[in-house]
Parts: sequence; C-alpha cells; structure tokens
Amino acid sequence: MILTENLNVLWASVLFETLYRLGLRTVVVSPGSRSGPLAIAAAAHPHLEAVPILDERSAAFFALGLVQQQGRPVALVCTSGTAAANFYPAIIEASLSHLPLIVLTADRPPELRFCQAGQAIDQVHLYGHAVRHYRELSLPELALLPYLRQTLCHSWQIALWPDPGPVHLNIPLRDPLDLRAAANFQVTLPENFFDQVQPFVQPRIVTPLPWLTWQQIQRGLIIAGPSHAVNPVAEAAAIDCLSRFLQWPVLADALSSARGLPHGITHYDLLLRNAHLRESLRPEAVIQLGPLPTSKALREWLSACDPLIWCLDPTGENNNPIHGRCQTLAIAPQAVDCPPDPLPPNPYLKDWQDHDQRLREQLQQVFEAIDWFCEVKLIYHLPEWLPPQTAIFVASSMPVRDVESVWRARDRSHRFYFNRGANGIDGTLSSALGVAHRGQPTLLISGDLACLHDTNGWLITPQFQGCLTVLLINNQGGGIFEHLPIRQFDPPFEAFFATPQPVDFSCLAAAYGIPYHCFKDWADVEAQLRQTPWPKIRLLEFRSDRHQNAQWRQQVLAHLGG
Amino acid sequence: MILTENLNVLWASVLFETLYRLGLRTVVVSPGSRSGPLAIAAAAHPHLEAVPILDERSAAFFALGLVQQQGRPVALVCTSGTAAANFYPAIIEASLSHLPLIVLTADRPPELRFCQAGQAIDQVHLYGHAVRHYRELSLPELALLPYLRQTLCHSWQIALWPDPGPVHLNIPLRDPLDLRAAANFQVTLPENFFDQVQPFVQPRIVTPLPWLTWQQIQRGLIIAGPSHAVNPVAEAAAIDCLSRFLQWPVLADALSSARGLPHGITHYDLLLRNAHLRESLRPEAVIQLGPLPTSKALREWLSACDPLIWCLDPTGENNNPIHGRCQTLAIAPQAVDCPPDPLPPNPYLKDWQDHDQRLREQLQQVFEAIDWFCEVKLIYHLPEWLPPQTAIFVASSMPVRDVESVWRARDRSHRFYFNRGANGIDGTLSSALGVAHRGQPTLLISGDLACLHDTNGWLITPQFQGCLTVLLINNQGGGIFEHLPIRQFDPPFEAFFATPQPVDFSCLAAAYGIPYHCFKDWADVEAQLRQTPWPKIRLLEFRSDRHQNAQWRQQVLAHLGG
Repeated sequence: MILTENLNVLWASVLFETLYRLGLRTVVVSPGSRSGPLAIAAAAHPHLEAVPILDERSAAFFALGLVQQQGRPVALVCTSGTAAANFYPAIIEASLSHLPLIVLTADRPPELRFCQAGQAIDQVHLYGHAVRHYRELSLPELALLPYLRQTLCHSWQIALWPDPGPVHLNIPLRDPLDLRAAANFQVTLPENFFDQVQPFVQPRIVTPLPWLTWQQIQRGLIIAGPSHAVNPVAEAAAIDCLSRFLQWPVLADALSSARGLPHGITHYDLLLRNAHLRESLRPEAVIQLGPLPTSKALREWLSACDPLIWCLDPTGENNNPIHGRCQTLAIAPQAVDCPPDPLPPNPYLKDWQDHDQRLREQLQQVFEAIDWFCEVKLIYHLPEWLPPQTAIFVASSMPVRDVESVWRARDRSHRFYFNRGANGIDGTLSSALGVAHRGQPTLLISGDLACLHDTNGWLITPQFQGCLTVLLINNQGGGIFEHLPIRQFDPPFEAFFATPQPVDFSCLAAAYGIPYHCFKDWADVEAQLRQTPWPKIRLLEFRSDRHQNAQWRQQVLAHLGG
Repeated sequence: MILTENLNVLWASVLFETLYRLGLRTVVVSPGSRSGPLAIAAAAHPHLEAVPILDERSAAFFALGLVQQQGRPVALVCTSGTAAANFYPAIIEASLSHLPLIVLTADRPPELRFCQAGQAIDQVHLYGHAVRHYRELSLPELALLPYLRQTLCHSWQIALWPDPGPVHLNIPLRDPLDLRAAANFQVTLPENFFDQVQPFVQPRIVTPLPWLTWQQIQRGLIIAGPSHAVNPVAEAAAIDCLSRFLQWPVLADALSSARGLPHGITHYDLLLRNAHLRESLRPEAVIQLGPLPTSKALREWLSACDPLIWCLDPTGENNNPIHGRCQTLAIAPQAVDCPPDPLPPNPYLKDWQDHDQRLREQLQQVFEAIDWFCEVKLIYHLPEWLPPQTAIFVASSMPVRDVESVWRARDRSHRFYFNRGANGIDGTLSSALGVAHRGQPTLLISGDLACLHDTNGWLITPQFQGCLTVLLINNQGGGIFEHLPIRQFDPPFEAFFATPQPVDFSCLAAAYGIPYHCFKDWADVEAQLRQTPWPKIRLLEFRSDRHQNAQWRQQVLAHLGG
C-alpha cells in the first residue's frame, strides 16, 4: 500500500493513505511530470479511484460535481505551472458554494523558482482569498512523515468546518520524480501510525430560535434557496416540520430540497410579477434558509415589503443581497427542534396555496395549446417524462430561471445539482459528468453557450462510469440577454451580447464518440426521455428560437399571475 | 466618439478613447451583462477593433498572440464572476513572458458584494502577484473623468515599463447598464482633454559593458534564448554585430531572433549530447541574451562547465536556472554599442562551425533515408516547404524541442511566436489565432494534447481575419512523457502520463466548419505546405507513432553528435 522505491512516491503514498482514512474516495489527476509521484501514488492506492483528466479546468469542475454527489471532499492533482491556474474558476465556485475540495498542486523546489527554470510560476497563495486555507508542504523527508500526516488531517478538517470550501496544498518535489530512480531504502511505518487518522466528526451547530416571536406572526413566509445539503431528504423533512408547525407557506427554489412540500408554493416567481398579488400577499416576516432563490420578482418584492428576516445558515454567510432587516442565525434546518403541536390553520397560507393552484391550472392550459418548441414547456414537462431517481444538473442563465418558474416537484426523487455560487456558465458539462460518475442517471439541462464554454468536458467521457443525458437547449446564443434592454440595440446586441456560435453539435458529438439526436417534435422529446434504461451518454438537441421564446416569456408567461 | 446617453457608457467611452490615444488598437470582449457598458463603448469606437470571444480563457490567450504580433498592449474585457478567473492562465503567461496586457474586469458595486447577490466574487487582487499593477476604479462620476484618464495613462505605462506585463483594472458599475436607460445629460469634454494622452515614450536602458574583459577571452560563447523582441530584425542585427566583433559563436534557440546568423550554431542541442564534444568545446565565458534555450543538454553542460556568465536583459530578470557565476546587465542587445573593428578570427568559433556543418550533413543523410512519418523530419523540412514570411507559432512540449534541435534558418523571414514563459500547453490554438489575426499567414505546430486542451480556440474562427494552418502532429498522447523514465511502468504510464484522447479530428474540424486534411505521404505534406495562397484556416493532421518517434530520437538523433 505504501510504495517505498522513491522518497517522493513514498511521501505521496502516505499523503493519499492519510486522505483515504480521513474519508477521501476519489482523486482527479491531470497529467504532468512534476506531479508524477502524486499520480503514481493515487493510481496505485487500492481503495481510491484516480480519474485522469487532461484539461485542469474541466478536471476541477468534474471534481466539484463529484463533491456534490458524494457529499465528501474530492482531491485534485496537477503539475506545476499554469496548469494550476486553470483550477481557479472551479475553486472560486467551490468557495462560494461551500463545497470542500482538496487541491494538491505539485511545485518546483525553491531552487528552481524565479530563475526561468521552466514550468515554474509563483504558486504561493495562488488562489488568494478563494481558499479557506493554504499550506506549502516541506520537501519530502522521512523524518517529516508525522508532520505530513497532521497537516493533512488539519487541512481536511478546514475543508469541512466551520465553513466548507476548498483548501490548497502546494507540494514541492525535487528530482528524481519516478519509480526507477530508486533510493533503495526500506521504510516501515509504525503499526499505529494511522490510528488517529479518522473521518472528521462534524459538530452540531445549534442557535436558540425566537419561537415566541414567530408564533405571533400572522403573515410569515419560509423562503428556501438553493441548497447543497448532503442529506436533502433530512433537510426537506426538517423544513416540512417547521412549516407545518408555523403553518407558514414555503417558497422553495427548485434547487432547494423543499420544492413540492405540502406547504410549498411552486410558482412564486410568476405570481409575484402581478402588482395586485405583490400587494395582497405582503409578508410581515420571513425565515430564509440559505441564500435567496434566483427570482428577480421575489427579490424586488422582498426589498419593497421590507419584512423582518431571520436567515438560518450554519456557515453564518451573509445571504442578504436586498439589505433587509435581517438577523443571521447560525443553524441548519436539520438542527431546528420544532415544538410538537402545530399552530392553527392560517388564512395567509391558504391564500398562497389558492393562487399557486390557479396558476398551476393556467400553466397546464397554456402549454396544452403550444406545439412549437417552447423552452419553458420543455422544463414544465420534465418532471413527468423523466424516470424516477434521475439526478438533474441545471446550467446557469435561462435553464435555472425556467426551472424556478415552472418546475412541479411531482416526483421528489428528482434531485437538483448546480454551480450557483458565482452563477457562472463555466464548467457545466464537466460538473454534470462528476454528478453522474458512479452516481444516479443524470440529466444535464444546458443552453448552447454553457455547453460550448465547456466542450473539453467531453474529453472526460472515456473515464466516465455512469449515465448522462445532455439536454441541449440550442437557441443560438445567450437567451438571458434577450431579457435585457440592450436587446433593442443591434449592433452591438448580436455580436457582443447574444454571441451565437456557429457550431454543428452533431459533428461535435461524433468527434468525441457521443451518440447524438435532434428532436423532431414533442412526441419525440417525450419518447426519448421516457425510454429506459438511458444509454451511458448522449446529446439530445432541442432547437428553439431565441427571440420567439424570449417574447413568449415576456408576453405570456410574465402575465399569468394576473 | 463619446457616447453620452448613460453614465456607465460615457465612462467606458472615455476609457477606450484614452487607451486608443495611448496606442491601443484591439479589445477582446467576452459576453456578459455587467460588462455591457464596456462592450458597447469598445464596439462603438471608430478606430478600435473589438473582437467578441465566448470563452474567457481562449480570449485571453488570443490577446496574448495579438500582443506578440502587434508589439503593443491589447485590452481584455469580461463580466463579473468566475469569467475573470478564466483569464488567469494567460495572465500568468503574460507576466512570465513580459507581454503587456490591459485586463478590464467589470465588477458589481460595493453594495452587491459579499451578500450572495449573484455573479459576485471577490475580484480585489484577483490575480495576486501575476499582475504588475492592480487598481480598483471608482464608480463612474462625471467629475472623475480626469482621474479616470490619468489612472489609465499610468496603468498603460506600467504595462510597458520597466518590466512589460499584465495590469488589472477592476471596474465597478452600478445599474442601469444599458443605452436605453438614458440619463439624458449632455457632456462636453474640454477640447484639450486628451492633449497629454500620448503613446508612452520608452526610455533607453543602457549599462556599461566589460569590453576589455570580453576581448581577452579566447573561448567565449553568445547564447541567445527565446525572445519576444518587438523588432526582431534589429535585435538580430545587434547580436550579429556583437558576434562579429568578438568572433564568438552564437548558440541561438530557434525561438530567438538570432538563429541562422553567420556565426550561428544551429545544432548545439545535438552536438552537446556527445561526451567528447562536451569536453572539447568547453567555454570560458558566456554572454547570455535573455532566458536560456530549452535544451537540457545545453543547460547540463553549462552547469558542468561553470563559465563566467553575463546575462543581458533589460528587465533585470533572473535568467539563471543553473545557478552559475552570473552577472546580470540590464541592457537589450539593440542597445549594445559595439567597437568598430572586429577581433582576429578565433579557432574556437571555427571548431563549433565545423562540428555544426558536419551535423547538418549527417542530418540530411539521415532524413533522406526515412520514409515513415518521423516528427523530427517534418520539422527539419519545414524551412524549405513553408512560403517566405510565414509566421510560426510553436506549441510547448515536443514541437518546441524538435524545432530547437533541427530547425535550419534557411529563410530568416520565418518568425517564431510562442508562449514559453510558463511552458504550459494551455491556450496554444487561441494564441496562434491571435498571432495570425490581421497578421502574416501563420503555421501552428502543435501536438494533439496541446491542440485538444484548447479546443475552444476554434470558436474564435468566425471572428478571425487572416490565415492560419494548424499542423497537428497527432501521436495520440504526450510524446514528451516518452522521454521520462516512468514510461517503463505501465500502468500507470498510458492512463496517467501519456493520456491519449480518442478524438476524431476530422469530425471536430467539421463541427467548427474548419477544412481538414490528413496527410497520406511525404509528397502530400510538401505539396500541402508549398501550395499558395494558404486558405483562411485549415487543420492538417500528421499521424505519427509516439513510441516509434521517441525511440528514434533516443537511438538515432541523440547520437548524431558523435
């Protein structure tokens, strides 16, 4: 288990054995020479999976998908030089999404830095404020294996607590870097060497809650934002319990675990576009769980109503972009201990439910009458067409907004995954592959720009074990920009905002050996999605008209709340 | 010229007008909403070219190619969020290559940071030590236009002097971001507003040189490393003059401007693999120009011989990875003022020339006998097969090493471009497109991994004006790793080091509408390259055997010096 032919490889082997005992299961490795000992040790470990990925940017986003799926840290390895800089977008996303990543960058030793030795950049604090913790390891020394062990235990802990996120270990290695260059030494680690290397025990963070105040509120709302809960079922049960006790409606983003709960309001984003409802549904108070949902209508309404807000977030994050009267309570929904007997039924809840029900019926009628390729109709029908237990990765920009507007949680087994910390479109395909790798069959819902930004994600395919369907909504450019006032000015609108990319996705799929299908009509869409089992990987193209869809959202969808 | 409908757009217009008057000609713009005012102003400027590129990583490397071709700074624009993080690899490369870049990142205003407002990351000092200079601009204010102007003048100067490199301006913008949201104000800039906005006047850096010492040295060498000289012809003339005066041989990397000068030694990398020559050609002293060439044989030999070294570099960079007895003299070759009368002929020069000549003849014989697809033979023949004035962008890893070993500068009009600051393979295709954009017809020499790492470079094609031929040496993986001892161990060699990627390049080319051709035989290679004019863009695939080529380099090429 511990390779001893070369000091660097021994060092790397102890490193991975320690991380394995802490709970690591997967290492994503990009190729390189300086990082060779780390690659050798990761590949040789009997219980770790090592996944080789060429493009470090894709590798890091793939790891971010794995972290979401596994609910545990994943390690990234790259060689010295700009390789490490390619991790940066995913590291920033991990930081903002509170997802633990162990970033291991090989580096040249001090004597080969700052002297034009080649493939040597300044890797010290390379990721600035984006990591929770940075350490430069010592060069490998036999006498320092206990130091290595403890540094890893501490770094692992920091990645998980108190605020989960990325940690960076910069690892200098001196030649020789390979197995053949044998030092011929024997190392026997003491039998008890790893005895205290154990998975980190998460403390329970509990904060007293203002139950008496809450019980006196007549018009209270629970608002549940996007959540990366490791156990979404437990989180949803806790939110359900809270809403049943208080008898408050739950405005839950589709990306939260709470969408579709009995007291859940699905279509708040559409309802709150109506001036009358914005007035009649004004809340006194809000319990906000994590960040706010994406909905601009919801945010503007909250800002105008200025309710009392309690934001529950165990990381203590400031989740208050509207600068409301907000108190942060450091507690997760699962740690909330609800009193046993629910409060009496609440007319405010009933109001919300009636409006939501009416909107649901309106939507059904509206979509029945549509036969053209309407993007929102596609999202609307997915909950019934997707097999149960399908994981869904949703790209930023339009898909996440359409999902928020119309997704009905008919089958709560459809769990969402997403990179919404920084709302970027980068790394979407790679992260979806990470969610699906050795996980549930997964659907990626992506626009054409997000998909093309991460074409190198397809390079992961040969390593990929699992089942991913890419549902490509190809409307030839950035649909979200159609909702900005600048769309009226062309030029520069098409060339500098919409930026359509003339790429033939059928050829692109063929280049990477990906089965491809372009939808003919709605029956075809339904049939392709319903047919089980899904193949290992495929690209399904839904060709829609960007202007037509934007107009329909503005002229029909936005007025349904009335 | 100055758009006045919206304060943000006015601010951005004054920004670009100032940069234009300082010497800017091209702005590379990635799409986004927050950056809208910058995009609008760049696109509307009558004398600037604005190039829209979707993937910020490619955009930044494209800009880096443009900087090399234009010999002046290029501006990059992106929106807030992880978009900006995707610039990082190219910014680090620009820093290490001493290439000026003006990086303009739009940002949210202070009140929308650190509160989960969406697409808001911590952009303050985002690029750490990799930029020469970081400033956060004020939010736009009419009264602050003179401040904006002066900050830009100073930033432009820092990008050029004393050490050219990237500068970062973070630009907060507050809603409304578009033209329609008109403030209806009128602004008249004073007529003399831009009077002192002028291209930066580069100072001449001159350091006294130890002519008397140099004249007494019997066995002196000039070693010229990779150079991004703005005027390579003038640089080569200066090096020629120095070598003629001292009568010293010039060991010039193919990436220097000095390859193929009358006193130039082309095949030093091959000669110095021979133990006898390493001994008989020992130098007393070396004048090193810029960084050392890539050749490992040269570096090891210099390290063993430990000559006196004077390193001439106007940036004062430490170019001494061998830690030799080295004095840095801050001066460019062009600023060296040679005494008029050359020293007497020098037997040491004659020795080098004789050996070089012998090796040249050997190479010719060796290659005549080869009919299989030998990668080094391909490089060897390029100088005769390429049209005059072809620019050449050479990828890192094997191509740059083969070029160093055998490139004969038959036609000194073949100028090389490269990203060798950090020796990464990232951004190769994008940078080559930047070199070719509105420039000379360009050949990119790239392996398959470098080409695939930057597939998104192809997305630039619709914006591209010029002529680029991609010569893809596809040996299914990282050929350079075949020269590491780890190649004897498989696993993990193929999966974690060579990392072949099963991609069909003909389909990939078709996806982006790129003409593609796979070479049939040597006559076909020659015909395709000789045929003029070259098309706008094409991909030529040279399929070679990675193991066969590596073995041949080790068993034949490495022993030619003997």
